[in-house]
Amino acid sequence: MATDEKQAREQLIDLAAEFYDQFAGGRIPEMTLPTRTKSNIEYDPESGVWTYGDRTSTRTANSVRGARKLLKAVYTIEFLADQLEEGRSSTLRELYYLSESWDNDEAQFTSQDESNDLVEDLEIVSGVTREDFHMRPEESGATLMGPLELREQTRRGEREIHCQEDVGEGGYQIPNNPDMIEFLEHDIDFVLCVETGGMRDRLVENGFDEEYNCLVVHLKGQPARATRRITRRLNDELGLPVVVFTDGDPWSYRIFGSVAYGSIKSAHLSEYLATPAARFIGIRPEDIVEYDLPSDPLSDSDVSALESELEDPRFQTDYWEEQIELQLDIGKKSEQQALASRGLDFVTDTYLPERLGEMDVL
Amino acid sequence: MATDEKQAREQLIDLAAEFYDQFAGGRIPEMTLPTRTKSNIEYDPESGVWTYGDRTSTRTANSVRGARKLLKAVYTIEFLADQLEEGRSSTLRELYYLSESWDNDEAQFTSQDESNDLVEDLEIVSGVTREDFHMRPEESGATLMGPLELREQTRRGEREIHCQEDVGEGGYQIPNNPDMIEFLEHDIDFVLCVETGGMRDRLVENGFDEEYNCLVVHLKGQPARATRRITRRLNDELGLPVVVFTDGDPWSYRIFGSVAYGSIKSAHLSEYLATPAARFIGIRPEDIVEYDLPSDPLSDSDVSALESELEDPRFQTDYWEEQIELQLDIGKKSEQQALASRGLDFVTDTYLPERLGEMDVL
Repeated sequence: MATDEKQAREQLIDLAAEFYDQFAGGRIPEMTLPTRTKSNIEYDPESGVWTYGDRTSTRTANSVRGARKLLKAVYTIEFLADQLEEGRSSTLRELYYLSESWDNDEAQFTSQDESNDLVEDLEIVSGVTREDFHMRPEESGATLMGPLELREQTRRGEREIHCQEDVGEGGYQIPNNPDMIEFLEHDIDFVLCVETGGMRDRLVENGFDEEYNCLVVHLKGQPARATRRITRRLNDELGLPVVVFTDGDPWSYRIFGSVAYGSIKSAHLSEYLATPAARFIGIRPEDIVEYDLPSDPLSDSDVSALESELEDPRFQTDYWEEQIELQLDIGKKSEQQALASRGLDFVTDTYLPERLGEMDVL
Repeated sequence: MATDEKQAREQLIDLAAEFYDQFAGGRIPEMTLPTRTKSNIEYDPESGVWTYGDRTSTRTANSVRGARKLLKAVYTIEFLADQLEEGRSSTLRELYYLSESWDNDEAQFTSQDESNDLVEDLEIVSGVTREDFHMRPEESGATLMGPLELREQTRRGEREIHCQEDVGEGGYQIPNNPDMIEFLEHDIDFVLCVETGGMRDRLVENGFDEEYNCLVVHLKGQPARATRRITRRLNDELGLPVVVFTDGDPWSYRIFGSVAYGSIKSAHLSEYLATPAARFIGIRPEDIVEYDLPSDPLSDSDVSALESELEDPRFQTDYWEEQIELQLDIGKKSEQQALASRGLDFVTDTYLPERLGEMDVL
């Protein structure tokens, strides 16, 4: 086992040992967690990410329901510790089904939500991420393309891969656990995270990554944890500026928000997954006006999403307030591919260079 | 331009030339297409795939509406011919937006459905696929993992990639146009197409591709055209058996159907995209019973989907009738990851080897 696997295993065993000690000391076992409701999530201006507030709730074995929850936790801890011991991994869904093979019926999960929530609870109390438990998500991250050479530790040995020279046009597929990647050499000036596959392909076809020494990260809509994690590491470890390029609508601003500030669902992992230094390049409502982009009218749900963003602490900056109010005012949204109305090269020849210049990235 | 690009371009120009000749001959220009409704789609037992029936409809310029449609077709043909001339490509969504830059307002598309449909019409009348027009889909295909060495012709030169030795655990990302791939060497005994990411990762973690010389193709739900195309080519060009491994529910049988027999939407391309020799490995309703898999009850929409499959010519074989009737009888469905209830290795040590043996693939 690698050091971090040993450490993850020990932290899990410590949790189980705590229950044991509580029993041995004649106390009713319990587990204390931050309250995981929206009202207990706070924006921490210092780290620039979402974190849990001070409120906690306690799971105690003094009811049948509570005791059953702790029993499930203990079985899951045993499974995860064995999995780490054997250097294996599994998906959240497999864990749910696997519980059917456990020798105690009471320990079996009744729904996948229950096992998913328990794994998140264990992440929080142990301070170990799901990836370090070797729990894989159902769907993997997206792809990278740009001047980066990396080494991926795979089960079949090490692979050294250059994300332009050793890959096809599809790019390098981010593995489920990007912490198995070591960055070797790079010639990257900035990281450009792109929402849609169509735009990612446009940038690659136009050679934007080569011309501007840029690493194109495909977000593929709402980004997977693996994609957010590697973005964070690129910013942290290589000190690279990160810009996010999405459609110009409230749902896409949320995509930016989850890259930059973290999501409510994974607030306990914001410092691991979020990149507070990430900046939004567009499509800004201002761009819809300035570049006279083809647009669609805002729907009712767009309008209420924008209004709720105005209340969202993540978006309470002069920049976002101005943009969101402008958008409510013009009543329009545009997709990133709408830039094609000015020709297929407009985005790489004009729009991105102009915006990157304004943002002092170029 | 490569030969096939030249040919695609010529076939487009021929179409435009036909309109010109009709004009020059004093006739009203028109374009005849097979009627693209469900009732005009037939299962061709000989080729084993869906094709259009004999009914046709004619677009003629003798109404403003019809004339406008042909005008749009001519503008699109010009755009596509230029794109091929310049060795470029674009997405369907870019084409829609790009039409805003055309000098004739009447030629602009009013919705993306309109431009998508027109490109499909052009595929049908010219006999050239969208990929050969260099029109990319929004989202790319999935990944390959297995003993295959291939050469991909990229815009940046050739890349030779071994789909086990030169890729990370994420595998080789299929490019948008898999006809840019040439198969070099391989040691594959059979191709295993897998519906879910979780199961794909399980097979790779357990080294199933190495132990059984199998190429694992991730379908990622309903497979993209690129994924179906490469599966067809693996079967055609390398003569490899193809088996499809999905969840055990009616929606997954449709995934199998689209791999094996083609989809109604792309019936004009069945001979290019479908693999009639593909066989279904599971999860069969019979497996739910035989392996006592964890299951969920069929919902009302599951039941009506199964009933409509019984009416579907693609599923009118003894095998499918028996399986679907059994499923309606037991009233249950199971996911492929439900096999984990027998342990994480059950699928690779027991289930797949047993089924492959029964199917004479092993």
